[in-house]
Amino acid sequence: MAIEKLLIANRGEIAVRIVRAARELGISTVQAHSAADAESLAVRLADEAVEIGPPQAAKSYLNIEAVVDAAKAAGADAVHPGYGFLAESSRFADAVEAAGMVFVGPRGDTIRMMGDKVEARTAAANAGVPTIPGSDGRIDDVADAKALAGAIGYPVMIKAAAGGGGRGIRIAHDEGEFEHFFQMAQTEAQSAFGDGGLYVEKVIERARHIEVQVLGDGSDVMHCFERECSLQRRRQKVWEEAPSSALRPAERDKLCASAVALAKSVNYRGAGTLEYLYDDATGEFYFIEMNTRIQVEHPVTEWVTGLDLVGEMLRIAGGEPLRFRQEDIALRGHAIEVRLNAEDPANNFMPFPGIVGTLGVPGGPGVRFDTMLYSGYAIPPFYDSLLGKLIVWGEDRVHAIERLKGALAELEIAGVKTTAPLFKALAEDADVKSGMVHTRWLERWLEDNASRLT
Amino acid sequence: MAIEKLLIANRGEIAVRIVRAARELGISTVQAHSAADAESLAVRLADEAVEIGPPQAAKSYLNIEAVVDAAKAAGADAVHPGYGFLAESSRFADAVEAAGMVFVGPRGDTIRMMGDKVEARTAAANAGVPTIPGSDGRIDDVADAKALAGAIGYPVMIKAAAGGGGRGIRIAHDEGEFEHFFQMAQTEAQSAFGDGGLYVEKVIERARHIEVQVLGDGSDVMHCFERECSLQRRRQKVWEEAPSSALRPAERDKLCASAVALAKSVNYRGAGTLEYLYDDATGEFYFIEMNTRIQVEHPVTEWVTGLDLVGEMLRIAGGEPLRFRQEDIALRGHAIEVRLNAEDPANNFMPFPGIVGTLGVPGGPGVRFDTMLYSGYAIPPFYDSLLGKLIVWGEDRVHAIERLKGALAELEIAGVKTTAPLFKALAEDADVKSGMVHTRWLERWLEDNASRLT
Repeated sequence: MAIEKLLIANRGEIAVRIVRAARELGISTVQAHSAADAESLAVRLADEAVEIGPPQAAKSYLNIEAVVDAAKAAGADAVHPGYGFLAESSRFADAVEAAGMVFVGPRGDTIRMMGDKVEARTAAANAGVPTIPGSDGRIDDVADAKALAGAIGYPVMIKAAAGGGGRGIRIAHDEGEFEHFFQMAQTEAQSAFGDGGLYVEKVIERARHIEVQVLGDGSDVMHCFERECSLQRRRQKVWEEAPSSALRPAERDKLCASAVALAKSVNYRGAGTLEYLYDDATGEFYFIEMNTRIQVEHPVTEWVTGLDLVGEMLRIAGGEPLRFRQEDIALRGHAIEVRLNAEDPANNFMPFPGIVGTLGVPGGPGVRFDTMLYSGYAIPPFYDSLLGKLIVWGEDRVHAIERLKGALAELEIAGVKTTAPLFKALAEDADVKSGMVHTRWLERWLEDNASRLT
Repeated sequence: MAIEKLLIANRGEIAVRIVRAARELGISTVQAHSAADAESLAVRLADEAVEIGPPQAAKSYLNIEAVVDAAKAAGADAVHPGYGFLAESSRFADAVEAAGMVFVGPRGDTIRMMGDKVEARTAAANAGVPTIPGSDGRIDDVADAKALAGAIGYPVMIKAAAGGGGRGIRIAHDEGEFEHFFQMAQTEAQSAFGDGGLYVEKVIERARHIEVQVLGDGSDVMHCFERECSLQRRRQKVWEEAPSSALRPAERDKLCASAVALAKSVNYRGAGTLEYLYDDATGEFYFIEMNTRIQVEHPVTEWVTGLDLVGEMLRIAGGEPLRFRQEDIALRGHAIEVRLNAEDPANNFMPFPGIVGTLGVPGGPGVRFDTMLYSGYAIPPFYDSLLGKLIVWGEDRVHAIERLKGALAELEIAGVKTTAPLFKALAEDADVKSGMVHTRWLERWLEDNASRLT
């Protein structure tokens, strides 16, 4: 049954994006917002707005009961979670559906399964999708672990089973290091997490981050090709592209087919992204995880495929089957997105909230600016620093980079410092221009070039 | 030889558009401007700027000598004329080339030929392109004229050979009216223009304006499909689309092939547009004229084909052959452009210059805003009232109209009245939604709906 009234359980640019998609489909919108976001652009653009709690996310955007109650009270028949906050909370998905509304995303059990590293890895293996060679789960015995490390080949990564976000990771380059680090890691994990369990995994030394966008309707799944997001700082993507410049056509086919196979094996419903590491040296790819939601970088896929991914999410949630056949989805040109954060790149990316003065939005062909900013907007200090995403399209990658340079030159966000200088510098960099980057490239580049980012 | 330095001999949004295209190709730009345009966005974005005269266009943008001298003094190797002003002056094209620079457009003799109604009509006939049945040139004898009118069928249009812009036109519905109007028109033309010569032409009663975009490199020509621009006020287009919703695929093929045949027959160089009337009742089309320049509405073609037409003009002017084969050019989706003028639609479209306050630019997928506005810009009162063009793309026409409605709702241009209310009303109109419009539809609609445009 088509959605008639949608509650948006998010903020910032993605809330604006969801309002726009809903509006085009004739769906009325209710913007749920914290007390700090009463003057947000999404609140201004939505048909209705409802305050769900104080500024602290834990008491508003992360408060399942408050969001579900607000949706019910507003008479919404569906809830879009955006990304972040509750987007990958299976409890939230379950609560929305238990309250008789549609959760715009996969079923709670799919979110739960893909959120569990071991279950996701098992699902991948069952679907014939390669994962990074390593222990399939916890490994406790140092001798077993050393044998495994020898079999998969050094360097290997030792990480705490209970860790996350890069904490408790060590890289061993040979047997001697391995034994030493394994025992250290065990002790540390025990004291840090109360659980000494470890994983062992092969290190891909020059890895690219490549991910495949899929859409599923609960029975059929299609892919919308891949994005490359190798330029990362502190494991956060800052610059994303579609398609990847690294893949040969046969590799692209194989990668996308693997993503469809895995998503089909779980009867995936909604928009999702399967993330992979791609080994430049061998052309092999390894599944890392699936994000069961819309992603920040979805616009680059929208531009090269002509699809409206948020619109498709809403149609699927309304019960429509996929409207396209796989062969209808074709690539045209090349798109790049850069994330503009309210941070000062010349000062170690210190957050820089403030009041937005004049806003100069670049125009012309092939330029899209997704933002929640408007002139006079006071950026609240409570949330992440993403201000907007500048997306450009060109006939090929070289053209897209030239267009990005032009758009960055025209962009004006008075009153705050942003990461625009980083992207101006990157767009002139020889490695970036030639696409010779990997997931640790940007951290090293920043060590050498921080002084240029003023 | 690739262009290195380009003088832009125009103003407003098209000057900004040309700066952007040149920048992406690594061409440096010199913005020629009148004294009234020193603070224009194009001046701000271009690498250099040069004042060519006082505000009055006749003394600056229409002053061939001043423009050519400025280009030479700046060391430019090419001049882009934009649209309007000197864009279709063969004398200007000749003067630019005589001064040793490249004119970004066709040769002067092509401009001259296509600017002459009779020559253009002859060229069309020679290329096998249908023209509107009528006198092939002047007709002076009333008996001859009456015989011709009977042969082509009533109603027929009688117009002064020396007229233009719709002046001196009468419609005769039968023989009695014809004889009467012909003699009146002869007397009037003699007194108004000093030349009693008349043309007679068949009236296409429910005509659509459909035009074909072509690109030529002086030897080869390809088409970039058609645009429909039937929504006109006082013969000015206000809303343009690509593709036309009226054409059947076989008609599209035939129309586009005819445009290529005509452009090829004159070895066309640059971007050009062949304008046709399309008879909804019969499916026949008739060539009217060729515009030998970039057109205001070029972005809709850019969006559905993925081409950068201004960029292609610069490449061709730099000596490159066409970079695409005809079969490489494919349509994707549907695009609509609306022309935002500084006019008050609730007050008979009275011009409304002023100082722009806050500028709220719509974003999200499928939205492009080409403008010369910025916050704080004082719109000079000397030129036409075009402020910008809002262009939307959707997967089909229905989607594009929904997106247009959303973008218009988000657009804010504080400080001036604009034609935005007209487009908001048109986007809700049943005839517009179903595409059942013709070139006189809007004038009649305005008679009934002017009161709603507030």
